[in-house]
Amino acid sequence: MPAIGPDDNVMVPAKIKGILAPVLTPFDQNAQPNVGRLVGHCKWLLENGCDGLVLFGTTSEANSLSVGERKRLAEQVVSAGISTRKLILGTGCCSLSDSIELTKQAIELGSAGALVLPPFYYKSVPDEGLFRYFGSLIDRVSDERLRLYLYHIPPVAQVGFSLPLVRKLTERYPGTVVGIKDSSGDWENTKALIASLGAHDFDVFPGNESYLLAALQVGAAGCISATANVAARPLQAVFQSWRAPGAKELQEAAGRVRIAFQKYPIIPGLKAVLAKALNDELWKSVLPPLLPLSSADSEKLFASLTETGFPWQQLSMR
Amino acid sequence: MPAIGPDDNVMVPAKIKGILAPVLTPFDQNAQPNVGRLVGHCKWLLENGCDGLVLFGTTSEANSLSVGERKRLAEQVVSAGISTRKLILGTGCCSLSDSIELTKQAIELGSAGALVLPPFYYKSVPDEGLFRYFGSLIDRVSDERLRLYLYHIPPVAQVGFSLPLVRKLTERYPGTVVGIKDSSGDWENTKALIASLGAHDFDVFPGNESYLLAALQVGAAGCISATANVAARPLQAVFQSWRAPGAKELQEAAGRVRIAFQKYPIIPGLKAVLAKALNDELWKSVLPPLLPLSSADSEKLFASLTETGFPWQQLSMR
Repeated sequence: MPAIGPDDNVMVPAKIKGILAPVLTPFDQNAQPNVGRLVGHCKWLLENGCDGLVLFGTTSEANSLSVGERKRLAEQVVSAGISTRKLILGTGCCSLSDSIELTKQAIELGSAGALVLPPFYYKSVPDEGLFRYFGSLIDRVSDERLRLYLYHIPPVAQVGFSLPLVRKLTERYPGTVVGIKDSSGDWENTKALIASLGAHDFDVFPGNESYLLAALQVGAAGCISATANVAARPLQAVFQSWRAPGAKELQEAAGRVRIAFQKYPIIPGLKAVLAKALNDELWKSVLPPLLPLSSADSEKLFASLTETGFPWQQLSMR
Repeated sequence: MPAIGPDDNVMVPAKIKGILAPVLTPFDQNAQPNVGRLVGHCKWLLENGCDGLVLFGTTSEANSLSVGERKRLAEQVVSAGISTRKLILGTGCCSLSDSIELTKQAIELGSAGALVLPPFYYKSVPDEGLFRYFGSLIDRVSDERLRLYLYHIPPVAQVGFSLPLVRKLTERYPGTVVGIKDSSGDWENTKALIASLGAHDFDVFPGNESYLLAALQVGAAGCISATANVAARPLQAVFQSWRAPGAKELQEAAGRVRIAFQKYPIIPGLKAVLAKALNDELWKSVLPPLLPLSSADSEKLFASLTETGFPWQQLSMR
């Protein structure tokens, strides 16, 4: 237990460990978020392998929503009874004012944390510029309940967190900058983050399960993976049993599901699978610039998934 | 004159041609836009070589502002008397709702057009996804006064407009999709755009002046360049005289100014020059993740500019 930190004085939910889904956002035909389906999906995820949820990650198409749309949706999800102790909210935007507004809301709602992208419009920005951005965010939010997770996803954002920057932020803001989602897809980077910071009550979550077992063995806090939207159970099995003899086989099973999804754009692919399993066409909808998966690719994806042995059709049991 | 188009029936300012500055946004110490300085700068630009202004381009740090901040600032600039006939507003965001809101405002204010970035969070998105994004934008704005300029800046946005996509958009929305700012820095691309679309009353503006003369010779509508914030006059000289015998020398003079700036980050560099020339420290301010230019680099930039022969100190005469 850390001896010093905001946790001692203010009410903040315990840090979430384990398997988290960056929750897909269902949309109506008119491109409006469908709250009912979203809440249903959140509940199902928490009952089917997820220890926690991230609302408004990349998989959620969060950056395709306005700040107002995100705030309303977060309120609606919490009002509908999804436990804020299980909820991390994505709050990072290009604009510092927007990130401040969303991060304040995440705290006010009593969520377990804020997952924050770096500002991603300008490229090749200096680490010092990112440090000032995050420093300004934390200073202007000015709330000791803030629990900030860094969102490192260079394949999409193109702007990321170097190891020295992560270290500088955790040293300057201990107890506030408490973890990272590492979606670099680079095992060496994840390993280096854990080795360098894992001992400081800093939680490292790989952004996918391809090396989940190896990461847990060296001290990862869990995993935040898009595929958890349909296949959290195989991930939870790895998380529960990583010290046990059969762990390698569990990792392989989870890995096969990942590989099936990786052949297609992941967000449309996950939505196609949900639409099929739930017999609910609406789940296919994505916001532009994304496109729904074609029928041909959907069929191929379903076949690949079936080959992995994962009972994806049982999603319909919700 | 085009025989068919929204221009015949509704009030829209004439299309701007020539030299446009993507206007720098001055900030106070508290990171708030400084309206007084912005309006002063706009007026000065229009009196010193600019045919028009783009509020909220990359150079304006527009994506570092919230939608609300942008809307307020646009209103304040127009209220202060900057002619909307001279004004194009940057309105493209990652979120379609945000782009719709800003584009509607650009029309309501009576501006000469909207310059729209593609949604830039997701990378490697299909052309069809971008086509649907712009189609939805135009259909949902649903206003025949809309005059939309595509903002192609792949070095920053990473997402851009292929030539087939530009052609498809202009064919589907003639009289609405009326031009492009091509900040690819790729002369071959600019040339291909003009060759393919220039005859269709479609205006191609190179995003910098490095090949302005060559572009004008094949039919470019002008140029929208960051450096116009301090050095519009040399660009205006090229624009006025591109058919004249001395055009090559004028282009070379403009090119030398560009080269001086290119050694440093362009936004902090331009602001350092304005701060120095106007003896106004506040102009140095940038929003994170950008950093102000260091004193050492500023001195080197000033020296390089002086070497070009461009009288940058005379900016103080405003």
